Amino acid sequence: MKLVTYRINHTPARLGFIEEQMIIDAEKLGHIKQSLLPDNMLDFIDLGIDGINHAVRLINTATKEELEECSIPLANATLLAPIPRPRKNIFGIGLNYTEHVAESARTLDTSKELPQEPVIFSKPTTAVTGPETNIIHNQKITKQLDWEVELAVIIGKGGKNISRENAMDHVYGYTVINDISARDCRRAGQWIVSKGQDTFAPMGPILVTRDEIADPHNLNLRLTVNGVEKQNSNTKFMLFNINDLVHDLSTVFTLDAADIIATGTPAGVGAGRSPQEFMWPGDVVEATVEGIGTLRNTVVDSEEV
Amino acid sequence: MKLVTYRINHTPARLGFIEEQMIIDAEKLGHIKQSLLPDNMLDFIDLGIDGINHAVRLINTATKEELEECSIPLANATLLAPIPRPRKNIFGIGLNYTEHVAESARTLDTSKELPQEPVIFSKPTTAVTGPETNIIHNQKITKQLDWEVELAVIIGKGGKNISRENAMDHVYGYTVINDISARDCRRAGQWIVSKGQDTFAPMGPILVTRDEIADPHNLNLRLTVNGVEKQNSNTKFMLFNINDLVHDLSTVFTLDAADIIATGTPAGVGAGRSPQEFMWPGDVVEATVEGIGTLRNTVVDSEEV
Repeated sequence: MKLVTYRINHTPARLGFIEEQMIIDAEKLGHIKQSLLPDNMLDFIDLGIDGINHAVRLINTATKEELEECSIPLANATLLAPIPRPRKNIFGIGLNYTEHVAESARTLDTSKELPQEPVIFSKPTTAVTGPETNIIHNQKITKQLDWEVELAVIIGKGGKNISRENAMDHVYGYTVINDISARDCRRAGQWIVSKGQDTFAPMGPILVTRDEIADPHNLNLRLTVNGVEKQNSNTKFMLFNINDLVHDLSTVFTLDAADIIATGTPAGVGAGRSPQEFMWPGDVVEATVEGIGTLRNTVVDSEEV
Repeated sequence: MKLVTYRINHTPARLGFIEEQMIIDAEKLGHIKQSLLPDNMLDFIDLGIDGINHAVRLINTATKEELEECSIPLANATLLAPIPRPRKNIFGIGLNYTEHVAESARTLDTSKELPQEPVIFSKPTTAVTGPETNIIHNQKITKQLDWEVELAVIIGKGGKNISRENAMDHVYGYTVINDISARDCRRAGQWIVSKGQDTFAPMGPILVTRDEIADPHNLNLRLTVNGVEKQNSNTKFMLFNINDLVHDLSTVFTLDAADIIATGTPAGVGAGRSPQEFMWPGDVVEATVEGIGTLRNTVVDSEEV
């Protein structure tokens, strides 16, 4: 399924399913079919594959009129981040593409050796923003605002010490994340100020459930700034793949339903270019992952927010 | 007030107020007084100072019999972390005491220069555990399990860009945190695996509201392992005080009600000793902050959990 968190005008956020340029409202669909579906993404993810199967069954048994009654055109809705407020920090993975390890070693303070274990960091929940929103640039804090297109993995069933073999059973679906990074904001080497500022985790536009992606390890990733291509790679070049990451993270932390893992960015970030390039107010950044969609955001100055 | 999250046997966690070795159950007190009080800490913190004033008024106007009806002896309860499941990551501050900066530079990979800005890191919500619980030692991951007694600040009113002058208006109260750190688990210098593993954020035993602490910048901190003193200092030696930290964090991140800031540890950690000392299964670690109490935990091997 293609899931969205959406709203119309200023109504509260609601869960919907995308079907042919329409959004079917989940809770309204349930009501019409005299059944129950949640009105928000977190509760729906908690239902796991059963929730997906149930929703598909309700859609497939609904008449055209019933579907019309609970649908609106996609164009009339505002899409939010699929999970507007995660339950805990987003887990990020650094240095997970070979060429990005090389460019980072040239221009940042990271090692040129390939990491032997996933490099984990986190972004607070307050960093999340949706598609078509602003990335806030506080020029008092940073002059090096950078982009990073990434495949984000959404956990379905949580757990501890998940094996590589079973890892995909714990994946609920995927979305796009732009791991915005203020390169000059590291403190004692720690990345959270660099990567965790408000609006530094744009996500969306939709959440695609696992069954819709035949091979998550063969998806093109692409990012443009003002229409000019800056990153273009494929998830097959990850150093640690999704199975590795779910396994490794779950040996350290308990993973929960709806946890988000940003799986790392390929080469082409602004800090790695010669000369370096960074984003400034007015810049439009578009991050695309094959099979999911394009996440577009505009940089604005914090003084103008 | 002295606030606790407690349970009796295996009942769900509840909010209580400590009065003379008794726990007054918040929700039951409200019921008896034909008023309303929340049954959990997060909702109570959301009420801010109004909630505190209301609860004090209900206690002060209750008869002895009414109080008895909603109280149990402290000794009969199990205290949990005051906030068993924070809404977002815990913010930690590294290198915030001069002598600890020096010992870290000698034995870890940090700079010997004093930081010019607070060094921020985070611990996931899943790291939280309470008093009298186990700290889980996974010997496959670490042979360098270390202690760090710290004053934890609980945010009351959230906000962005909070001034130093107004910072204390945003502080709800205080508790003790032991910022457990597996020194050999840093990855590309990032601390989250080192500091964020399950049970690496013991907190408690109680949350003391701001009004009960005359000067949070003059509190003794002490930590013992198996009864032997390892750390003994005072919050007056913080490099960045609470006003600085609330101001600085809020310029980077939106702070929310019930956010937790671990304000850094003084000298005396195991990694900084000569020879180095670390914790092993069976060790009992007690972290004390003046005016709050003692947080006691026992190290256990992960294979025995």
